[in-house]
Formats: sequence, structure tokens, C-alpha cells
Amino acid sequence: MLALWLEKNQISLRDLPQPKKPNEALIKIRKAGICSTDLELVKGYYPYTGILGHEFVGEVVDAPDKTWVGARVAGEINAVCSACEACLNGRRTHCENRTVLGIVNRDGVFAEYTTLPLDNLHRVPDSVSDEAAVFTEPLAAALEIQQQIQIKPTDRVLLVGAGRLGQLIAQILALTGCDLHVVARHVHQQNLLTARGIRLIAEGEIQPRKWDIVVEATGSSDGFNLARKAIHPRGTLVLKSTYKGEMNVNFSSIVVDEITVIGSRCGPFEPALRLLENGEVDPTVLIAAQYNLSDIVKGFERASQTGMLKVLVETE
Amino acid sequence: MLALWLEKNQISLRDLPQPKKPNEALIKIRKAGICSTDLELVKGYYPYTGILGHEFVGEVVDAPDKTWVGARVAGEINAVCSACEACLNGRRTHCENRTVLGIVNRDGVFAEYTTLPLDNLHRVPDSVSDEAAVFTEPLAAALEIQQQIQIKPTDRVLLVGAGRLGQLIAQILALTGCDLHVVARHVHQQNLLTARGIRLIAEGEIQPRKWDIVVEATGSSDGFNLARKAIHPRGTLVLKSTYKGEMNVNFSSIVVDEITVIGSRCGPFEPALRLLENGEVDPTVLIAAQYNLSDIVKGFERASQTGMLKVLVETE
Repeated sequence: MLALWLEKNQISLRDLPQPKKPNEALIKIRKAGICSTDLELVKGYYPYTGILGHEFVGEVVDAPDKTWVGARVAGEINAVCSACEACLNGRRTHCENRTVLGIVNRDGVFAEYTTLPLDNLHRVPDSVSDEAAVFTEPLAAALEIQQQIQIKPTDRVLLVGAGRLGQLIAQILALTGCDLHVVARHVHQQNLLTARGIRLIAEGEIQPRKWDIVVEATGSSDGFNLARKAIHPRGTLVLKSTYKGEMNVNFSSIVVDEITVIGSRCGPFEPALRLLENGEVDPTVLIAAQYNLSDIVKGFERASQTGMLKVLVETE
Repeated sequence: MLALWLEKNQISLRDLPQPKKPNEALIKIRKAGICSTDLELVKGYYPYTGILGHEFVGEVVDAPDKTWVGARVAGEINAVCSACEACLNGRRTHCENRTVLGIVNRDGVFAEYTTLPLDNLHRVPDSVSDEAAVFTEPLAAALEIQQQIQIKPTDRVLLVGAGRLGQLIAQILALTGCDLHVVARHVHQQNLLTARGIRLIAEGEIQPRKWDIVVEATGSSDGFNLARKAIHPRGTLVLKSTYKGEMNVNFSSIVVDEITVIGSRCGPFEPALRLLENGEVDPTVLIAAQYNLSDIVKGFERASQTGMLKVLVETE
């Protein structure tokens, strides 16, 4: 089968054998999405060798439990042991023995087929299109914020960054009724937000030390510093993006201002699918381009352009 | 009156006029404590010029409300405006217009007299000695941890650092029934803890990624790194000490592990006085030496020695 292989910071299309794991579902990929993490992996953010890709919607073509065959599914990316202390204490996405789809020791979804344990799969409601369902994983990641902290309707919330993940975060934060403002650098990002009635704020207009909650979704030290300045004492700074290398941070000011900094990663799939099904969020507006798997290297080039939103990959 | 003046990283005893603020209580200092923050201020951690010192027990000798005259008091260190957004939202210790006793624009307590607004004062119960009451402020700071986060009786809690503040934190954390272990470098620190039945742990024995809550009370990057490694994914790292300059931190790992980092500063005085009154904590075991105000410069030298516990200053 055709697949996008990453090795030593190089991606290339390869013809690989179809995967076969007797205890897992075999899934034919229908659509996959290129995420910032994929781009970072290519840059060497984490040493991974294998098939890239973790955002997908697909069809189960074989499974240990045949009732799954034919199901259209999204899949959680962490394959877990269910036996370690993290698993047994409800922190399954932090399983000490996990493999992670297209990220850690598990071939990903930029391929004709992939495999995942049945426990990872979620059936996609019929009314949700492939174009929407392919966003289940990043939408779940956006919802992780509300899984971790309470966002009150009266909270002043600042979102820094309106890229691929930032747009989804903006959509779900707006649903809380909070007083949300978003820093979006690019006009097409701004247009998507204003079309949904989400308010923008220019960097220069951000009142320092005034915001209850700030979500940092740029992954840049500039974004972090902007977020840090905006938060008020005892406020919460949610880190929703990874940062390359180390960052210099003044921790004394975090102590003096009693700031809470919280890292946020993978989130719950079922609520993401519910929001897609009832139409409360619409990720499809983010789609900037679609490439066939055979052209995926061009898709990666496109996705790497500054401010680019979602590039999808289709395998049919 | 005699007072310890800080100016340009130099401390010196001076003869200064007795303070006089018609809207504040005039307090005769009975005892004061030298805190790590005082030592850091001398090193230039924060640009302060004035009388140093913020931990004290004293007697009100004059006040706008005469019912306070003669009262033995401890005093909150943040003098606030009661009108700014922080004050009006219950974050009085973060008042945007605050002065801070012996730290920010307000002369401190290493002197014969100081002044504070009546709102800052708390009456010390008769059964609490001066030697205990002088610890009200740092004990309140230790209690701030439980004001910010829930500590469950089943939590595995690691405290890194057992100095002046660390000892008080250890005593109050032990009261929660949590599974507490303390990293204490110095034998006399260790002895105080074991005398209270508090368990020690050697640095080399700390299981990585296993602790629910880690409290960092060393203020060193070594301590921070030790704490960071100990915490499990989704765990909470409480920063209970200030750090000089900036620190290099890998924020990607904080995102991937979904760690909560929370800065913690001043805490509630009344609970601290209740614990002193009912004898649940005993800070007096920390007293390493007492110096008369006229010898306070020697007291600072003593307090600066590695591993030194509390040096008190008496004005009588």
C-alpha cells in the first residue's frame, strides 16, 4: 500500500505491506488531516520513524469483533496498556506504555490502511460528513481545555493564535458564553472568526493583567509572552501547543502573581462527535486544500506555509 | 528609633524618626523573623529601598480605632486599596495598588515601630506565645497551598526543600493525612521532621513520574528540576518559593504530560492563628537564634548560612 514514511527528518512516499495485527481493527483511511504536530515531527521535534499522520476518518474493514466491520470511525491516537498506574487511575492518554498513532512507535494514517485497538474507535454518526469527522481528534484536543478547567460564562478569555487548532478552540470556547477575544494574525483566520461572531483583538489592544483565562495556541515564545502578560494574578494560562526546545520564563513572577499554568493535550472523542453531530461547531470551514495521498508531499509543503489552515489528504 | 535600612544592596542600622500615619495603627514590634525574601531583597532580587522585614508580632500602641490599643497582633503584609478590580474580586493580596510591608513601598518591621492599616491586623490569642505568633505570616503562606488546590488524604505528596518555609509546609501538609515525603538536605532539618513523624526521602529514591502533588520550596533550579521529574502526568507542581532570574524549562513536556504548575504566595492569617492556638503546628522548633535589633546585621549573616532555620529579632 502507499504510505508517507518519515525517517531522519525526511518524508517520502513508499509502497509498504498492508498492516496486519490480529488483535486490532484494520481500517481503510477515507480522509486524513495534516496537523502542526506532523510538521514538527518532520522538523525533528520528536524522534519518530514510521508512517506519519494521526487525524483521520476511516472504515473498519476487518476486526476481532466482526460487528465493527463496515463502521465509519474516528480513532483515539493513544493505544494503551490498561494495566499501568496511569491507566488504572483514569489517565489513559498518559499510559506509561502507550504507543501513539503516527507519533510514538505506531504507524500512522497517511496510508491506505492503518490499525488500532477497538477500544480506540468511535463510530461516526451518519449525519457527520467525512470532511467534518476528520477533525474529531483536534476538536477533542480543543475540548480537553474544558475537561481540565472550568470556564465560567462571566470569564474574560483570551485566545492567542487562530491557526488549525486555534480555530477549533475559538469555536468551542464561544459556546461557553464567556467573554472571548481572539488574537488572529492572518486575514483569512480573522474572517473565519468574525463570520461566526467571534470577536478579534489586536495585540496592541490587549489589556495587561486583565484576563481570567488565556489559552496559548501558537507554540511560539512570542505567543507565550503575550499570554503571560495578559493574565491577571490568580488567572489560568492554558498551554495548548507544544514548544520547540526550552523557554526562558520568569518563574518568580508566576509565584508572585500566583498564576496557574496548565498543559493540555489529547481530549475526549465522544463530546467532539456530539458537537459535530448537532452542528454546534463547523470545522469544515478550515479546509484550505485537499490532496490525494499520491500527492501528499505537495500537501505537506502547502500545510507548512505561514498561516495555512487545514490541508486534508484523501486516499480514494 | 532604631531600624534596619536597605539601600543599594546594603543593610545598615539607622536612627530614624518613629513612623506616623493617622489612618494606620502604630505598632511596637515585639519580635520579627528573618525570611528568605529578606535575604533575596538584600541580594537585589527586587529593587527596594527602606526598612526591611515583614514577619512580626507586635503591640498596637496607637490606632484610629482606640479599641485596638494594647492588642497583640500579627499583620498581613499587603496594604490594599479595596477599590481595584483585584480587590473587588476577592484577590486582595494581588491589589494593583498595593504596598507590601518591607518589600514594596512600605517600611517594614526590623525597627522599634511600624504602621499598618487596621484591616491588616489580626489579634493573637493569649495562649499563643510571641515566639509562635511571629510565624503567623509564613504559616499563612504555607496554608495558601490548600487555599489554592485540594490535597486529598490519598494523595502522594512530595515536598522538595525543608528550610524555613519548607518546615512549616511539611507540618501543615502532614495534617491532611496525605502520603507525604520530604526531601531535606541538612541533618538538623531532617531531625525536626522525623521528630514529628514526617517521612523523609533521599533524592535518589524519588520515583520519577509517580507523585500526585509536588511542592517546590527550595527556589533553586535544581529543586525545580527534581520536582518536575517527580510529578506524574496530570499532576500538580506548586511553586512555593521565588526564583532568581529566568529559568529554562521544557514546556513541551508540560503540555504532553498535562502538568499544572501553580505559583503560591501569601495566605490566610486566621487559619494560621487557629492552628497555632490549638497547637496543631509548632513553628518554635525552627528557631535557631535570636538577636537584639541592635545586633540584627549579625543576625542577617547567621540567617544567610546554608541550611539555617529561623533567626528571630527582638526589640526589647
